[in-house]
Amino acid sequence: MSFQKLDTLGHKLEALEHALSILGADEATHMAPGGGEKRAEAMATLAGMYHAQATAPEIADWIAAAKAEALDEDQVLALGEFERGYINATCLPTEFVERRTAATMRSEQLWRELRAKGDWDSFVPALEGVVALVREEAQLRADALDLAPYDALMEQYDPGNRTADLDLVFADLKSFLKDFVPEALAAQEERLARRPRKPLNGPYPIEKQRELGLAAMRAVGFDFTHGSLAVSHHPFCGGVPSDVRMTTRYRTDELLSSLMGVLHETGHALYEQGLPKAWSHWPLGKARGMGMHESQSLFVEMQLARSPEFWEFALPLVHLHLGADAIPGWDVADILAEVNHVERGYIRVDADEVTYPLHVILRYELEQELVSGKLEASQIPEAWDAKMVEYLGISTILDPKDGPMQDVHWPGGAFGYFPSYTLGAMIAAQQWAALEKALPNARDTMRKGDFSAINQWRADHIWSQGSRWSTPDLITRATGEPLNADYFKAHLRQRYLG
Amino acid sequence: MSFQKLDTLGHKLEALEHALSILGADEATHMAPGGGEKRAEAMATLAGMYHAQATAPEIADWIAAAKAEALDEDQVLALGEFERGYINATCLPTEFVERRTAATMRSEQLWRELRAKGDWDSFVPALEGVVALVREEAQLRADALDLAPYDALMEQYDPGNRTADLDLVFADLKSFLKDFVPEALAAQEERLARRPRKPLNGPYPIEKQRELGLAAMRAVGFDFTHGSLAVSHHPFCGGVPSDVRMTTRYRTDELLSSLMGVLHETGHALYEQGLPKAWSHWPLGKARGMGMHESQSLFVEMQLARSPEFWEFALPLVHLHLGADAIPGWDVADILAEVNHVERGYIRVDADEVTYPLHVILRYELEQELVSGKLEASQIPEAWDAKMVEYLGISTILDPKDGPMQDVHWPGGAFGYFPSYTLGAMIAAQQWAALEKALPNARDTMRKGDFSAINQWRADHIWSQGSRWSTPDLITRATGEPLNADYFKAHLRQRYLG
Repeated sequence: MSFQKLDTLGHKLEALEHALSILGADEATHMAPGGGEKRAEAMATLAGMYHAQATAPEIADWIAAAKAEALDEDQVLALGEFERGYINATCLPTEFVERRTAATMRSEQLWRELRAKGDWDSFVPALEGVVALVREEAQLRADALDLAPYDALMEQYDPGNRTADLDLVFADLKSFLKDFVPEALAAQEERLARRPRKPLNGPYPIEKQRELGLAAMRAVGFDFTHGSLAVSHHPFCGGVPSDVRMTTRYRTDELLSSLMGVLHETGHALYEQGLPKAWSHWPLGKARGMGMHESQSLFVEMQLARSPEFWEFALPLVHLHLGADAIPGWDVADILAEVNHVERGYIRVDADEVTYPLHVILRYELEQELVSGKLEASQIPEAWDAKMVEYLGISTILDPKDGPMQDVHWPGGAFGYFPSYTLGAMIAAQQWAALEKALPNARDTMRKGDFSAINQWRADHIWSQGSRWSTPDLITRATGEPLNADYFKAHLRQRYLG
Repeated sequence: MSFQKLDTLGHKLEALEHALSILGADEATHMAPGGGEKRAEAMATLAGMYHAQATAPEIADWIAAAKAEALDEDQVLALGEFERGYINATCLPTEFVERRTAATMRSEQLWRELRAKGDWDSFVPALEGVVALVREEAQLRADALDLAPYDALMEQYDPGNRTADLDLVFADLKSFLKDFVPEALAAQEERLARRPRKPLNGPYPIEKQRELGLAAMRAVGFDFTHGSLAVSHHPFCGGVPSDVRMTTRYRTDELLSSLMGVLHETGHALYEQGLPKAWSHWPLGKARGMGMHESQSLFVEMQLARSPEFWEFALPLVHLHLGADAIPGWDVADILAEVNHVERGYIRVDADEVTYPLHVILRYELEQELVSGKLEASQIPEAWDAKMVEYLGISTILDPKDGPMQDVHWPGGAFGYFPSYTLGAMIAAQQWAALEKALPNARDTMRKGDFSAINQWRADHIWSQGSRWSTPDLITRATGEPLNADYFKAHLRQRYLG
């Protein structure tokens, strides 16, 4: 039976993925400093085995034959995802993949070197090469998937995501934010005049911050029988659903950055831990995509952990683990002012939830033009600056390091990924609205530190669904309507003007 | 070129081994408690991939063709080890391997259950099944390798090890120890009458014991750019040569057990870290075998870390890390009395270096008879007891848990492994004698905590050799003569009667 062959293949691929995920997490947390070279060699070889097994020509025959077999509903859906994965993995000729991998690796290395110096001019030729390859890739994917080139790139990260839909939603959001950012800043200024920021009372010992982070993870539902928290330079959520490897980093002069980071990564972890276990060796059992994944981390970070109700519960937790004098005189309003501080800045990853979407929309617009050929790499600085000035009122023209050189995505050839971030923020707000309609006392339970009903709703509507539906279909099924920026806008209004 | 194909295969097998080693170490140190099932599944699948790739039929053709190619000296040796590994891996039919794996897994599980109760009678049928399979395996290996059955089993662990040689050395050692044990015990009693054991002054905080262990590892040459120390229930030395994963466990009422364990495992680690890096993807680049590996751990534990010279250096280290009052009034002689305490006991793994070989020789003699058919599993308790009474003067007939049920080796089907332990102890003593001839001031350097010359000698003579020579040839090349129990006997005489 051909479906059985796919099932067996799934177990092999799951084992290789398991090894790659754990080796990757281990590298960032426990590897000896001199172990990197052999680790890279081993992981490249295992990734090669994975690719060879996942793209074997006979798989096409198995998929075709399985379509004629008597399958149950789950198997039919699983077969669809096997096919989707196979087409996405095989639509690029090996010769092209090798050429692109070599070029993006070189370009990424060069970027790491030149970014520190802000040397855009030396970097342009490498980026031009990457853009040429991305145009070629987008066309190859477009032909294989019968999609427009940029849609075909997005399809890798969020199946079903289309510019036709996203353009409208992003245009709506952009025009809202151009007015909203100044309003939010004005409201903030007024609040700060009434109630100035209070000083912290560090240092905060790492071991105590760790205990606080673990307590917060436990409260919002992290399952420590299937995961753990370690330290790494760049925080991440990795590992496998049965053993999620989360990390954070600590500053001893400050306590909120690690805690909020931990809560963000816990959102990713809950999605992984809540995926359907019986399908763990099928593509169908995986998280839907990057936008949906980001919606789960942002849900915990933005909808839960930056809300007043959360801090009614969490402020005593800070006192419990860091002492009554850790943040002397702070009440919930002080914490909220701190974690919800809005600022126009140059750097996407440092941006708050109000300005963040403008950073993303800028990139989304530019990369569409780069892929279509309307824009060349050499023209990026001017185009970037024009949009920064228009959307955020600040110029980066004199400092490419804080402008178009700040992200790894383009040097690494990852075009079509940026929209997922803001897609996630909008999905998170829309999910909260749907959830609160179903659970009118959700905010009350949060005040008590009880996240069980909130998590159960998300488990039922999102986590347990794995990859059964496309991203837009999953949004509609979970929330009752298609993606709608109004929920995110309402969320911002309530939080920053309310 | 066929050798090139073997070389490429070597890289693939190295990557899978890397994954299996790191996943194995991770499982014992950092895995979430609920991650075991998926981990076992992933590792079994990866091990299956390894086996399939290592035993592919075309490898036989590559080996045959490579013999006709123009190879340099290292490549010729490498080819020999590729062939040795291939024959050892393919000499058992798949059908047999499956049958044996199923039987030993069941038997090992049953043993874990029944050992706690000391229920030998319920265990015998399973062990009889394992013995029957081991006899079959020994004959299959004997036919493939043109060796006697028991020699063919030992060949897996220490290539070149033969009962014809070992019988003589073990007989010599056994007859020595039968007299020596009572002499050593009498001398110890007399010493203790003069100088009673002094009390410890715990508790010893784990963090401080860890610092002491790390300092000791660093002193004897552990390379922390290529390895680390963690905690696990059963201490081990795992990982890969570029990233050695060592573990220990701590008791807070005691400090020597963890420290001596750390030093033992550091001996294994130094061998791994000292292996030839250029051959890391060839079987030729691996450690020679179990006996040689044990000789390196025992060298650090017995020849170095239980000597007076070592403690002249290490006692101040204990004070530095655990405080001046950690072991009040103890001097080097007190430490030595503690770490070199001799006692007739039932349990091999708890035995001191004087009585340990008698535990091993007992098993070596019995398992030869079990393999040849002279002894049946049901007759083990009487045979075991007779030897325990004869060699150590104690009886285990009433308590099989502390007798033939104490080890995992036989329930798991690992026959031919036990002699490696005592082989290692004898090699270690013989190596020290050769080393001291070449470096007459070796003991003085140890007093100063300087192990560089000692390590350089071992790097040159053992570690850098990888698997170039059979175990007996490596012994002769490194020490100038074949295995000779006289060095171990002299070591014991000096330490316990000196």
